[in-house]
Amino acid sequence: MDSMTFVLFGATGDLAKRKIFPALYNLFLDEKLAPNFSIVGSGRSPMEQEEFSEYVEQSLKTFSRREDNDSRMKEFLSFIRYMAVDVTQKDEYAQLLDLVTSREKELNLPENRLFYLSVAPQFFDVIASNIQQSGLGSTKGWKRLIIEKPFGHDLPSARELNAKLSKSFEEEEIYRIDHYLGKPMVQNLEAIEFANPILQALWNKRHIANVQITASEIVGVEERAGYYDNSGAIRDMIQNHMLQMMMLTAMHIPEKVSANGIREEKKKVMEALRPLNPENINTDVIRGQYSSGEIKGEKVIGYIDEPGIERTSKNDTFIAARLWVDNEMWEGVPFYLRTGKRMTEKSTRIVIEFKDPLRGVYKDEAGNALPNLLTIEINPNAGVSLQLNSKNLLNEGKVEPINVMFYSNEENVPEAYELLIHDALLGDPTFFAHWNEVELAWKWVQPILDAFEADTAPLHHYKAGSMGPEASDKLLAENGFKWW
Amino acid sequence: MDSMTFVLFGATGDLAKRKIFPALYNLFLDEKLAPNFSIVGSGRSPMEQEEFSEYVEQSLKTFSRREDNDSRMKEFLSFIRYMAVDVTQKDEYAQLLDLVTSREKELNLPENRLFYLSVAPQFFDVIASNIQQSGLGSTKGWKRLIIEKPFGHDLPSARELNAKLSKSFEEEEIYRIDHYLGKPMVQNLEAIEFANPILQALWNKRHIANVQITASEIVGVEERAGYYDNSGAIRDMIQNHMLQMMMLTAMHIPEKVSANGIREEKKKVMEALRPLNPENINTDVIRGQYSSGEIKGEKVIGYIDEPGIERTSKNDTFIAARLWVDNEMWEGVPFYLRTGKRMTEKSTRIVIEFKDPLRGVYKDEAGNALPNLLTIEINPNAGVSLQLNSKNLLNEGKVEPINVMFYSNEENVPEAYELLIHDALLGDPTFFAHWNEVELAWKWVQPILDAFEADTAPLHHYKAGSMGPEASDKLLAENGFKWW
Repeated sequence: MDSMTFVLFGATGDLAKRKIFPALYNLFLDEKLAPNFSIVGSGRSPMEQEEFSEYVEQSLKTFSRREDNDSRMKEFLSFIRYMAVDVTQKDEYAQLLDLVTSREKELNLPENRLFYLSVAPQFFDVIASNIQQSGLGSTKGWKRLIIEKPFGHDLPSARELNAKLSKSFEEEEIYRIDHYLGKPMVQNLEAIEFANPILQALWNKRHIANVQITASEIVGVEERAGYYDNSGAIRDMIQNHMLQMMMLTAMHIPEKVSANGIREEKKKVMEALRPLNPENINTDVIRGQYSSGEIKGEKVIGYIDEPGIERTSKNDTFIAARLWVDNEMWEGVPFYLRTGKRMTEKSTRIVIEFKDPLRGVYKDEAGNALPNLLTIEINPNAGVSLQLNSKNLLNEGKVEPINVMFYSNEENVPEAYELLIHDALLGDPTFFAHWNEVELAWKWVQPILDAFEADTAPLHHYKAGSMGPEASDKLLAENGFKWW
Repeated sequence: MDSMTFVLFGATGDLAKRKIFPALYNLFLDEKLAPNFSIVGSGRSPMEQEEFSEYVEQSLKTFSRREDNDSRMKEFLSFIRYMAVDVTQKDEYAQLLDLVTSREKELNLPENRLFYLSVAPQFFDVIASNIQQSGLGSTKGWKRLIIEKPFGHDLPSARELNAKLSKSFEEEEIYRIDHYLGKPMVQNLEAIEFANPILQALWNKRHIANVQITASEIVGVEERAGYYDNSGAIRDMIQNHMLQMMMLTAMHIPEKVSANGIREEKKKVMEALRPLNPENINTDVIRGQYSSGEIKGEKVIGYIDEPGIERTSKNDTFIAARLWVDNEMWEGVPFYLRTGKRMTEKSTRIVIEFKDPLRGVYKDEAGNALPNLLTIEINPNAGVSLQLNSKNLLNEGKVEPINVMFYSNEENVPEAYELLIHDALLGDPTFFAHWNEVELAWKWVQPILDAFEADTAPLHHYKAGSMGPEASDKLLAENGFKWW
């Protein structure tokens, strides 16, 4: 790995404290950083260097998955400097440049600079532009930009943001974080699909009946009412995480398994995605909102009763959708997405239901032929399981489903942010969202945003603690399926 | 289930004590026998009824997998009668008939009679013929014959035995025991193959690279020197158990999944089996014999040093063989069988190694692409496991094999003899060897017997505690494979 400077905007923010500093520290402990590097944090508040060091130390002690190691921690902290910057003030970047270059000289570092924007989205473009204009971005080495979500609020705003960023950074220099792409089992999808000849052979419309991607949460809107009521599940989950998982599941094996190969195949999936129109939007997309209910024996209030939410809000806390990938590989195979808050369980998983050309030869006691299922559990467990049918000799040899399971040992598995920051530092964009993907995802989602905005799509209520509205089950029942 | 009489020849023998009475008792406890039945045991030794009852009671207490239950045991014992019979004396069968019919009257049983020959093979034909001539076999109901192994010593003797038996019993009335066919996972093979669409899709030459069937034992010749030195692994394991497992693995799904359908498909496999001839016998069959060695830290003696074995014996305690099923389904896919005594571990399993058409796209650290494997563990564990490739995020995301496993809960799984006797009582011959299979198996094996007899096949020695001679590994290496 190249020696470099890591410039963090938003260094006193929540994400920096919980994820970014601990990730950098864990990489440092694992000797996955270059031996020589500089970290420059900037935030709004003035802070002495010592005060900031203590702040970071506290963050590491609280949020790093590693055990305390005083001497290594001191060493790590010695690489870090802090400077208060008002990011909207162009002239303040000159001081930041001074700090960065003086550290480069002190530590004998090449001018490789990674800028991490862990700030509110309205500052993305101004920071990028100021980096460029201040000379921070005019390096003799490489420069890269890591940018947090959300990337736009709809198709026009995303395009506008991208146009602005591209004045200062090339597409190859921009690393758009989708932290689901950092989850171990999401990174593993590619290997599961492509490194297993038997799954490769089965991974198409001839053998797969449908694909079900679920990301359910138990929590409600929490303290994010202001943000969430303007975003809804559609922007918070579907446009980014859910569509990303769908792309990774549906992509064809690239000619060359590389970052570009994989991104090219993901783009092809999005291009083949059947667009929504006023006819299919109400049959294929279910908008849901939780009403009061019970979770694990405790009563919980409905969405419109949550603090900070208007009682008239029609915001979507649940979305189910049926997608069709209109290409040779997936013709006729529905992809179902489902995500929501205040559901029965916390679970992110992908279920592949296989076709049963032998339907009827073997049946269980109730006369059903249970399909083979491949389940990729992403969260909170990380694992792969396969449902096969087998005779139960304790039950007269009746054919019953069994589960062959693999769970990865999750102790000390690197966290999403470690994997992603490490990749960005290495210049590997595989698990970052390319502009093509982001744009095509907004393009697909835009008619839904319009329909919700115009309130032409019905709002289905579901009880907190359930798995969503009835309409979501109907979506699958229409094709003869059910959620697994 | 029909009410019936169970006539057991060899009722004071070892198999009756260890397996047959406990099996009947377990079926009785599970209420899987008809409510009304009669058991008539016969043996060489004169014994009072009471003495025999105590003998059976002791057998149940020692060998039944069920907990003691005095009242149920007494009830069960009340169904049993004993009579000493010299099976070679025709006139003694008249008395046996008297006992059987008087019990039928007492218990108001229809004349359904099952005769179980748990005796030395030289008595098989004389008993069958005497059953017929004495009138025992002239029933108004059904009659069935269960016959233990070995069924012949070679092709001519098996044919002779069958010709004799068929004078007294129809093929549909004969139930040839192969106790491997009673093992839960062997009975499950059919469901694994046929009730799982994804495995059905993969179960052919396009996707399978090779099939490996292993039955290894740790024990040596034990107290069976006299029998074993005349039989060898080829008769003791290959001709029956190993070929049966091979048939069940290689069979095509029958048009109708029924006893006849399955037996028809098994026969087709045997018919498609490439015959051995003087050229391929020495390249495709490995004869092995254990020499002294070490097992689990203990020194063990070689085969020719075992008590009761001649020092010049060339008997096979190990066989490895490469078989080719010359049909559309398996063209070019080698089936490897391997069985032996004094090996590293006790294990019976079937490993399906899948082809890797993507060889080279994904590799592990050593540059190997590990194949997908489906392993069906038969003994001592019963389970199914699938080896998939997955990224190991604790090891830089390198692709490594993982095992997704299913082990059946083995507590209180019915034993082979329970399942088999139950099937025979129901008249279901699925898991008994049909004469066609037995004859074709002997036919395939006969050239090996001839080569061993003429000593034209080399005898490879292997160390006790190893997995067999080097030649067995070479057999697979020649095709680019290795034993898993």
